[in-house]
This record gives sequence, C-alpha cells and structure tokens, in this order.
Amino acid sequence: MKKNSIITLTTDFETRSGYVGVMKGVILGIAPHVQIVDISHEVSPQDILEAQFLLQLAIPYFPKGTIHVAVVDPGVGTQRRPILVKTPLSVLIGPDNGIFTPWLKKSEIRHLENRSFFMDEISRTFHGRDIFAPVAAHVANGVDIKKLGKIITDPERKNPPVPVLRAGEIRGQVIYIDSFGNLITNISAEDAGKIPNPLIIIGKRKIKGLVGAYAEAPVGKPCALIGSDGLLEIAVVHGNARMILGAKRGMQVKIVSYLA
Amino acid sequence: MKKNSIITLTTDFETRSGYVGVMKGVILGIAPHVQIVDISHEVSPQDILEAQFLLQLAIPYFPKGTIHVAVVDPGVGTQRRPILVKTPLSVLIGPDNGIFTPWLKKSEIRHLENRSFFMDEISRTFHGRDIFAPVAAHVANGVDIKKLGKIITDPERKNPPVPVLRAGEIRGQVIYIDSFGNLITNISAEDAGKIPNPLIIIGKRKIKGLVGAYAEAPVGKPCALIGSDGLLEIAVVHGNARMILGAKRGMQVKIVSYLA
Amino acid sequence: MKKNSIITLTTDFETRSGYVGVMKGVILGIAPHVQIVDISHEVSPQDILEAQFLLQLAIPYFPKGTIHVAVVDPGVGTQRRPILVKTPLSVLIGPDNGIFTPWLKKSEIRHLENRSFFMDEISRTFHGRDIFAPVAAHVANGVDIKKLGKIITDPERKNPPVPVLRAGEIRGQVIYIDSFGNLITNISAEDAGKIPNPLIIIGKRKIKGLVGAYAEAPVGKPCALIGSDGLLEIAVVHGNARMILGAKRGMQVKIVSYLA
Repeated sequence: MKKNSIITLTTDFETRSGYVGVMKGVILGIAPHVQIVDISHEVSPQDILEAQFLLQLAIPYFPKGTIHVAVVDPGVGTQRRPILVKTPLSVLIGPDNGIFTPWLKKSEIRHLENRSFFMDEISRTFHGRDIFAPVAAHVANGVDIKKLGKIITDPERKNPPVPVLRAGEIRGQVIYIDSFGNLITNISAEDAGKIPNPLIIIGKRKIKGLVGAYAEAPVGKPCALIGSDGLLEIAVVHGNARMILGAKRGMQVKIVSYLA
Repeated sequence: MKKNSIITLTTDFETRSGYVGVMKGVILGIAPHVQIVDISHEVSPQDILEAQFLLQLAIPYFPKGTIHVAVVDPGVGTQRRPILVKTPLSVLIGPDNGIFTPWLKKSEIRHLENRSFFMDEISRTFHGRDIFAPVAAHVANGVDIKKLGKIITDPERKNPPVPVLRAGEIRGQVIYIDSFGNLITNISAEDAGKIPNPLIIIGKRKIKGLVGAYAEAPVGKPCALIGSDGLLEIAVVHGNARMILGAKRGMQVKIVSYLA
Repeated sequence: MKKNSIITLTTDFETRSGYVGVMKGVILGIAPHVQIVDISHEVSPQDILEAQFLLQLAIPYFPKGTIHVAVVDPGVGTQRRPILVKTPLSVLIGPDNGIFTPWLKKSEIRHLENRSFFMDEISRTFHGRDIFAPVAAHVANGVDIKKLGKIITDPERKNPPVPVLRAGEIRGQVIYIDSFGNLITNISAEDAGKIPNPLIIIGKRKIKGLVGAYAEAPVGKPCALIGSDGLLEIAVVHGNARMILGAKRGMQVKIVSYLA
C-alpha cells in the first residue's frame, strides 16, 4: 500500500461558489496527508475537449503517481459511468465522457461501482463531491483499485479536431485561447516545420514567418511562434491577439509558403 | 494540546490583490503544519448572508476540528467584536456581524480580546490579516481557547429570508446564483415535496414539475430540480438561467400545484 | 542543508489556462515537502511595477526563509537574465527586469546559469515552468545557491513613481486599485501627516480630512484613510471608488491644507 501524495483538480466550477472548496474538504477528511493542486476551475462550462487539452498540457509536469480528478460533466446524474483510468504514470478519475481519451491506450480502465468508497448520499448533480473526490482520496490512501469496480473496455471517446496536411499547405484551427489572449492552434511544431518560408493566414491577416520568442516580434502586431506546449501559437506582444483578431476557438489557421 | 490541521478561508477579497496570500503567510508563519483551503474569495462585497450561505454548504464536508475563518467585514475598525465560535465539530473565527448565526446554538462563543495572539500592530482596515489569521493559526497550534477572550452570550444575528408556506402554495426566493448561473432558492426539498404536481413560477415563467438531473431536462429551457445542497434550484441545461431569466438574488419563486 | 518549506507564486498568468498548476506540478515533483502559496496570478499583463507593489505588501508577512517566485516577464526568451536575490530574510526568484528592485540592497544577487537545476528542455516562452519553478524547488531542497550561478552587481532596476512634496502640498498618484475598487496611492501615512487639516483632491473631487476606518465614512461618498499597507487610500463605503471616480492607475492625488 503505497501512498500517493498529490491530487489535482480540473473543473468548470469556477472558485466563486465554493464547490471546489467542498471537494477539498472531502479529500482532506479522508486523506489528510494529500497536497491538492488546482489545474483550472475555469474550463468553459461543459467543454470536455477544453478540459482534455488543459490536462494534456499539465499532466506531463506532475510526478509519477499523481492522481488527476477532472469534473466537466454534463451527463452527471444519468447513466454515464464514473471511471478511473490507471495509466503507466498517473491515475485519472472522472466521468466517462471522453475527457480522458488521450490516455486510454495501455491503461487499466475501471467503472467506479463500489459505493463503500463514495459519500454516503449520492446527489444527482454533484459527483465531484460525492464520488470523484472521495474515490481519489481513497486511492491516495493506497486502496487497491481492483476494489473500486470492474475493468471496462468500451470507454467513451472524444477527439479534438486534427489539422489537414496537403502538399504545401496545412489547415488547422484555434483550439484554445489562453489568458493572455494568445491563440493556440492544433498545428504542431513538427508539422509547421514542413512548410518552408511559412505564411500563416488567420481570417484576413497574413503573418510572414515565425519568431522565436514574444519579445522578438514588433509590439502590437500579430506574430506566430511555437509555444511552450510545442504548438503553433498566434500572439500580439503587449496586446491581446483574441481581441485584435476577433478570434474564437475553432477559427481556421492556414499555413502556406510565401515563396510558393 | 491537540493540533488541528485544516484552516479554511472565506472572504470577499478576491485573489487579485494579494490580501488572501498575505493571510496565508501569517498563518503559515505561526502554524507551518496547517493545510489552508479556500472556500471562496468571491463573496459579493460585504454580503454577510452570502458568506453565511456558502459556509453552510461547505462546513458539513470538512473533517471534525477544522477551523473556518470568514472575513466579510463591513464594520472592520469599529466597535464590532472579533469572535470565535466553538461548535461541537468546528471552530469559526471572524467578525461578530451575524455571519455565524446558524452555528450559535450549542456553541461556545468568545470575544477575541487577548492581543498577544494578534499581530503586533492592528490596522483598522484589515483584521483578516491582523487578528483572524493569527488567532486561527494559534488555535491550530492547540492554544486553549479560554486564553483568547471571555465568553459572550449576545452575539449579533443575521438570518436569511425564509419561505412562506400556505395551503397549496410556497413563496420563496432566489438566495444564491452559482457560477453556472443556476438559481438556488431557499425552498428545501422537503418543503417542495409538500406540493403535489408542482408548478414553479419565477417572473413570467412557469416550469411544470421537477427533473431528477440536469441531463433529463430539454436543452436551453428552464428546468427545476433539487440541487446538491438539498434546495430547489432553477437551471438551464447548456445555458445560463441567470441570463435567460434575467434573474437576481431576491427574486420571488413560487410553487403551486398545476392540478389545483 | 536547511530545508525551506514555503514557496510563493506571483504571476500575470491568471489561473484559467493551467500554467500556474503546471508550475506547481514541477515544484512538487522536485520538492514534495513544500507548501505553495499564491500571492496573485492576476497582475495586469506584463506590469512589472504592479507585481513589485504586491510583493512589497506581501513579503513582510511571510516567515523567514520563504522563497518568492515572481513571473511577470515580457522579455522571456531574450537575453534578459534569470536571477535569484538572497535577501536577509527571503529568497526571490524571477526575471532580471526590475521586479525585485526594492530588495537589491544588502542582497546577494545571482545569475541563474546552471542548467542542471532547470528542466531538461527550456522553452523560449515559459521560463516560469522551465527555470524559475525548478530552481525554487531545488532551493527549497537546500541546494547551495552558489551552485546556481555567479554573483552579479548590475541588476536591472525599475522604480515606482514617488510623490512630490512641497511646502504645504503633496502630489502623488494612484498606484494600485484593489478588488474593492479602493484607490491606493503612493503617499505614505508619514507624508500625509505633514499636512495639517488635509484636503485630498482627486480629479474634481475634494475630500476633507481622513477617517480612521471604512465604517466611519458616510455610505456612498468618497473618503480618504490610511490603508492596511500604511498608504493613503481613497475608498467609497458600500461602493466602488474606481467606478464612482472614474479612476485609473496613474491618476493624480493631491493633498493641501483646507485652512491654508
């Protein structure tokens, strides 16, 4: 029985209403030794793919054995299953709605069925408090995950849009807009590197070439660069690309060669 | 001298200005072993009843011995007393302005008077930092609460509005709007259950019957259900009831029977 | 090798995008014993002086040995150096862009050069994750700071505006607006005390005298007082001075004597 010491939380609850605090109370009541880390509580309401994206950025930076709880859960109270995904490095706990799709391969997936690890009363609107928080705390206490429920092999899947690569052209899209207003696309550094002399086209704007760091771009004009997550990103130094470009998630971003 | 290990914080400070961080510095300087949990720092400015409501939702989910500090404190710097309320399960610390009204029965209430447990200098605008945080930390260290000040029997009280029940009708109101825009009323599940075939009336809207979970309601239309706190709640699936209904706190919510 | 146990974080990242969570994952992977405290993640984007101001308010309230990481870093990815400032009481870690100016005297300042204490890969856009978080964690683990890089004597400096004192008059300005909308000025209690019978002038408003506490002022009207930070502050009881006065950071605040 090895104890784990970190539980992370990712939700669309915001922090204002106290729901996150309540989950922490439940966790610490069961597993007082745990450190709880907030990844984000400002996922757009019920946006499963946004939560998945944030988890993909964050999980690699947490130590082995970390337990990640994600509650973006439009189907709470219905037949959708609560699940646990044991990957080679982490334990993921949340609803079976596709949120954990990138981690399903090579993982042990269990349907959380054993009510002795839940709260005594289970509401139909707040499984973060009644199921996911207590199960995470018990796992942190070293409970054998075999006791939590049976293995399942048919979890729900939900995949983000992938960019389309053709000869001399990549069509991707904005998949996340961060708090600086930077537009993060689904075009990887590797793919972006396939287009020599790249011209990045977003809406009516054309951006010639990439810069290496924010401070290399002229102030106030859109620039393109590879962000800290290894993805093509459009930013405005000392400005907000979202506002200046009127950008939204899903907006198309195209790369062609300006010498072609 | 038993040590307590959790201190929660509930304030209207928001997190932007660093006031909450400062309180945590004070606490950890005195009681380094403590885990600090944020319940909410986005209580509406100076709204004592809203803080009371959030504490009522959260406190039952924290382990015995938890110390809850609440600082929504329009009277800071005046004659209003700083108090400690020792309930059978928890310790509450904050201003004597009614914030702790639901916990006053069967509790030991003390006026915090012993300045040796305060910061050396006491400002007239930030008792969260100068009085409540250090006292909470000393209590977490196991200080005998008798040393903190004398018992008082005349604490301030402040009660939320209660619903009016008549034959075949309940008149309540919206008492909180959460971060999803769900309208939480002061009508309990028990009271709501007294009206068979309920028709919920809010403004010009009429909602027939209750659903069991968010996902059982049609997308985009107001529905009523019993929320995770045991209170009647009005929500819009994949939408925001506050915005769609133009709702505000205090708005009347009536239940009658649609067969009556 | 004495271990330190608190690391604070001050950034302009907001919490929505998960960047702060990632830094915490990095820290706890290296130094699992650490308590991490958020001071603020809502510094105005790239506003070095605002971060400096918040650190000045917060640092005195943290225990000796606390490690403060500050990442407001418009020059990330350029030649600007990452630095560590060892003051008599704390350790400060962040970019060499003036953010730590008030603490440079009597401190040991080192250029963080030893990549063995960084992440394996260093992005050009997120040194909070790749340099500052891991270095702070290693310092918390007791690493000798001599190993981190050479002493430098030419750190960047950035100073906030200072008030101008003349006979019978002080001209200062609003340097921070807190989450209540209170306008905090750069005029100290000491300086304000030099003007007998003070008349505070901001825009077209004139405020006669200071109150001792918020609750001493009439509701809804601007008042002046000495805030918990020892600075002259303009507030509106049960209101928002920023909105009522249309105030912005940098706005002039003048004190004269109303009997002069």
